[in-house]
Amino acid sequence: MSIFVHNGYVDTAQTLHDPVAEACCAPLTAEPISADEARKFAQLLKAVADPARLRLVSLVAAQENKEACVCDLTGPLGLGQPTVSHHLKILVDAGILRREKRGVWAYYSLVPGALERAAAVLSPK
Amino acid sequence: MSIFVHNGYVDTAQTLHDPVAEACCAPLTAEPISADEARKFAQLLKAVADPARLRLVSLVAAQENKEACVCDLTGPLGLGQPTVSHHLKILVDAGILRREKRGVWAYYSLVPGALERAAAVLSPK
Repeated sequence: MSIFVHNGYVDTAQTLHDPVAEACCAPLTAEPISADEARKFAQLLKAVADPARLRLVSLVAAQENKEACVCDLTGPLGLGQPTVSHHLKILVDAGILRREKRGVWAYYSLVPGALERAAAVLSPK
Repeated sequence: MSIFVHNGYVDTAQTLHDPVAEACCAPLTAEPISADEARKFAQLLKAVADPARLRLVSLVAAQENKEACVCDLTGPLGLGQPTVSHHLKILVDAGILRREKRGVWAYYSLVPGALERAAAVLSPK
């Protein structure tokens, strides 16, 4: 596990690698993708292929300052904090969201370019 | 089930609706998507969030005439015909591939615009 120091706070939840950038690959329709590329890209798509996680991504993006804590998300989703935290962890692990601990709360924001890179594999721009 | 007559052949596997076009919705990051939109779009993403199905889409697109029968696909994937047919059916039901029966074989091709529409929900162009 890597240690990030951000604005004076230490955040052990961040990792240095960019899973979306590593996931794959030229556009699907450009040439046949390899078994390994398919496995990695499927893993990334599975992270977003869930109704609660799609709504979380959408809600985080809609926040005025483009970040949200779990406390902002449980109400609109109608789900409990442990369930929301579970879904957020999957999105962080997939490289779609990043998590920054500040004081008591962790704040979640979109990883810049992550959804764009996933979309570009499905279909070139 | 609707009946298509195409080039003189009757194909009962085609359906008139366009599941990708119906699935969703403005880009995820434009505004919070509804629970119903999230459910439909998650269902579409699940159809492609599988290594074998991603490779099938990629292989079909790579064919010289942009269509393939199951006989073209089992070899490169290293999977049996029933398994490949199962995955192809999921992609047809999701509106990613279309199926056209000609004689003994069914031929699969990409539904024009389907991957592009899915990509545009993940990230606007």
